[in-house]
Amino acid sequence: MTILDGKKISNMIKDEIKEEVDQMKDRREKVPHLAAVLVGNDGASQTYVNSKVKSCNRVGFESTLIKLENTITELELLRQIDKLNKNKDIDGFIVQLPLPPQINTQKVIMAIDPDKDVDGFHPANFGKMALDMTSFIPATPFGILELLERYDVETKGKHTVVIGRSHIVGRPMSILMGRKGWPGNSTVTQTHSHTKNITQIISQADIVISALGIPNFLKAEMVKDDAVVIDVGITRVPDDTKKKGYRIAGDADFEAVSKKASFITPVPGGVGPMTISMLLKNTLLAREMHLND
Amino acid sequence: MTILDGKKISNMIKDEIKEEVDQMKDRREKVPHLAAVLVGNDGASQTYVNSKVKSCNRVGFESTLIKLENTITELELLRQIDKLNKNKDIDGFIVQLPLPPQINTQKVIMAIDPDKDVDGFHPANFGKMALDMTSFIPATPFGILELLERYDVETKGKHTVVIGRSHIVGRPMSILMGRKGWPGNSTVTQTHSHTKNITQIISQADIVISALGIPNFLKAEMVKDDAVVIDVGITRVPDDTKKKGYRIAGDADFEAVSKKASFITPVPGGVGPMTISMLLKNTLLAREMHLND
Repeated sequence: MTILDGKKISNMIKDEIKEEVDQMKDRREKVPHLAAVLVGNDGASQTYVNSKVKSCNRVGFESTLIKLENTITELELLRQIDKLNKNKDIDGFIVQLPLPPQINTQKVIMAIDPDKDVDGFHPANFGKMALDMTSFIPATPFGILELLERYDVETKGKHTVVIGRSHIVGRPMSILMGRKGWPGNSTVTQTHSHTKNITQIISQADIVISALGIPNFLKAEMVKDDAVVIDVGITRVPDDTKKKGYRIAGDADFEAVSKKASFITPVPGGVGPMTISMLLKNTLLAREMHLND
Repeated sequence: MTILDGKKISNMIKDEIKEEVDQMKDRREKVPHLAAVLVGNDGASQTYVNSKVKSCNRVGFESTLIKLENTITELELLRQIDKLNKNKDIDGFIVQLPLPPQINTQKVIMAIDPDKDVDGFHPANFGKMALDMTSFIPATPFGILELLERYDVETKGKHTVVIGRSHIVGRPMSILMGRKGWPGNSTVTQTHSHTKNITQIISQADIVISALGIPNFLKAEMVKDDAVVIDVGITRVPDDTKKKGYRIAGDADFEAVSKKASFITPVPGGVGPMTISMLLKNTLLAREMHLND
């Protein structure tokens, strides 16, 4: 059994990006510039955005953090986005979700210039992805592809079962695993809350990608021998032995499942740490695209 | 066993559209206007485009047929598209595929204003479809959804197996059948040329959607009792008894499979006739969208 070590791979990718940025600097080229828009004071959102900014610093990107009041109107936010769209110095930007209730999230996503949409949430990017064109792939699915690639996991002709159909994980993942190329060329079964015989379907999977958010859902007896298990669950479980009062749990019963799997991502330290690196990768891609503008 | 009669439903839809157009005329509103671009003299393409124009006449749409030489340059074609994009009288248009080799098809599709892309091939529309937003759904998948709806076929919690992953049928179909709502909410398995145990997978399907193009591929012993069989195969098979010298064959061994299925589309007369009606429906939708411009 091999652990798909997202923390290690994520650091490797950051080092690789830093090297590219150093070369840009040597050539006196503009370095990639990521902006992040944070609305309100949600603790988790602040943590995410801060670590995105910190990662930019680490790899040598420029970064801009735009903090907006929780009471901002939709129109004001759309104006900020328009400014970022027009600001030639900024290669890509993200609007940290969730947004306060007075704001229509879809409208906000639609307002982002697809060429700067490094989260890959705009339908123009999603459609390109589904039609096999180059695009910004959302960070979590992109990170999973990268892990499969770095660990040389065969996906062609394998049966991949994706649990969950969210716009940011399940749906893009099932499209990506069925695309031509590698990682891809899998037979993909997309399951969700209406799936009836989920246990029987999972038992057929060579690769299981679980994005359900139910700790301990995936048990050893459910997976095939030598299955590849990608655990995208991130649930906070109360735990008094931890300083924060909780621990992060994945969907899989890691201890038991890992004994049966050929590859498995731990939680934490698997898919999670990959996401920021993939955001940086998308920002680097945005910079390269804009070079040709 | 019920035959999903695409010819009948297609005519019903045309009648419904005509009624809506008649009401528009009564209200002295502009009627929908579809343009079709035909490049070259390919016989099949000419036939398709002519029947699209004829259907426009039948339902009371305005139509414009733009015939271009086979030798047209990419730039000239892109200029024509730009004109159609800007022409406020035209609600939607299609560029009949295939295009001659000097022309990059993807570039042409990307040049079409997504709000006039009634074929639903532009990534912006494809992405909206995959993200559950209102969009132009490509005619063949749209026609299949419509057939399932008109015949009240339950899809929720059913296992749908889609054979083939083309951009115009297999891939959109597997996305659509897994979306929330009805028809949808299916557990969807997307199979393709690299799928290993296709027979075993099909045997589990409550709904089979075959877009393979291999006559007689789908045999009675492969499908479950009471399966719903949607046959998207359209292959010309030489047949001396026919005036044209060929007949159109689907993927399924209709005679045997129909005895086992609960619903089945015949070929011809199933999915095929639906496509033009769905193109008309998309054009009507385009008109309604542009009303709010």
